[in-house]
Amino acid sequence: MRWGIISTGHIAAKFADALHASESEQVVAAASRDAGRAADFASNYGIARSYGSYEALLADPEVEAVYIGLPNSMHAEWSIKTAQAGKHILCEKPLAVSRAEAITMYDAARANNVWLVEAFMYRFNPRTLKLGELLAQRAIGDVRIIRASFGFFLSDMSNVRLNAELVGGALMDVGCYCVNVARLAAGQAPSRALAAAQWAGSGVDETLAGTLEYPGGALAQISCTLSGSSHQQVQ
Amino acid sequence: MRWGIISTGHIAAKFADALHASESEQVVAAASRDAGRAADFASNYGIARSYGSYEALLADPEVEAVYIGLPNSMHAEWSIKTAQAGKHILCEKPLAVSRAEAITMYDAARANNVWLVEAFMYRFNPRTLKLGELLAQRAIGDVRIIRASFGFFLSDMSNVRLNAELVGGALMDVGCYCVNVARLAAGQAPSRALAAAQWAGSGVDETLAGTLEYPGGALAQISCTLSGSSHQQVQ
Repeated sequence: MRWGIISTGHIAAKFADALHASESEQVVAAASRDAGRAADFASNYGIARSYGSYEALLADPEVEAVYIGLPNSMHAEWSIKTAQAGKHILCEKPLAVSRAEAITMYDAARANNVWLVEAFMYRFNPRTLKLGELLAQRAIGDVRIIRASFGFFLSDMSNVRLNAELVGGALMDVGCYCVNVARLAAGQAPSRALAAAQWAGSGVDETLAGTLEYPGGALAQISCTLSGSSHQQVQ
Repeated sequence: MRWGIISTGHIAAKFADALHASESEQVVAAASRDAGRAADFASNYGIARSYGSYEALLADPEVEAVYIGLPNSMHAEWSIKTAQAGKHILCEKPLAVSRAEAITMYDAARANNVWLVEAFMYRFNPRTLKLGELLAQRAIGDVRIIRASFGFFLSDMSNVRLNAELVGGALMDVGCYCVNVARLAAGQAPSRALAAAQWAGSGVDETLAGTLEYPGGALAQISCTLSGSSHQQVQ
């Protein structure tokens, strides 16, 4: 598959490097709203073409699939435009900032007959696949409590993760992994959610603790922070 | 100190054994509502006297302090009677089943000039003392998230821990440790509490997930279960 990358961020760079190591995949174009930044990124990561607008990348007939590494607030808009351009979509997590947005994105992908995949890469890790298999076999019996926590310390106060307009915050950035793995463990959607948060000055949740109840009887506790020690854990 | 034991349960037996190993403490009497059971317990654990009523033990002039290992619902009544008998009290956790009960117990101990101690033995563990010291020094900076979980699998459905009238349930039995250690870590009382539970047929909480918010900015997630795998953990 020939990929275009929309974003010139840190994770987009990792994505480009990873695709260079792949036998089946290749990156053919990168885009930024800033043509100079796109050119630098393309040159740094060995990508043939760069574009100063996302629309230009979507118009590139060679691009078959697009990796969208934009801030959370822009996932829906650019996933839908990518679908309308007839290209497959790998969108960064969290896919959407609301259920309504996610449904619209899904509908756009279906209507244009393209794949829409949320970039929860950990789901494809052999360990995660094995976990899913063991849970499906009820190898540990019924799941009663799921505990998942993910946090780190964000020292750069100008980081997009602290930007409320771009729908930042701990839950959106790292807590979504906890919600996602809890769903894997529970094997179903939650029926109720409770949460408490400590808020950053910018208005986003800096630390959040949530409880999810599942109809099958499991409870999940998820917690996340942008101002704690670095940790990732599931139990 | 010369101790009397009110209860002939599993933990009371451990308590008796532990006191035999002490140089400063001794057990002189044990009581049960059933005189035969009290006599068996006293004989099994090398205790001089046994009583077929708790009142009789409280009337024993040699007894200076009483360990109360009764079901949760009986802690207040017998702590207060022990205080009124002028004896010190070591009461099993949870001390009380409500704030009002705890205050009444405290007042009774004060009025009779005796000690009233809740049996959170882990608080006296060198590791716990060191933890308290490190937290007080802010050795890890501010506490953002506290996660504490305690659970085990209760196979005996007739166990008092599943009895609603005796105020059983996961929170009362093992969750109280999580609440207690969270308070140690936060260094203050919580300002808000949220919880979700799965209920046992008997009406007590079999599994509970709770969130505590502290005015200083910390969040605690506590979880406990009587029907999960055995675990005890604080982070």
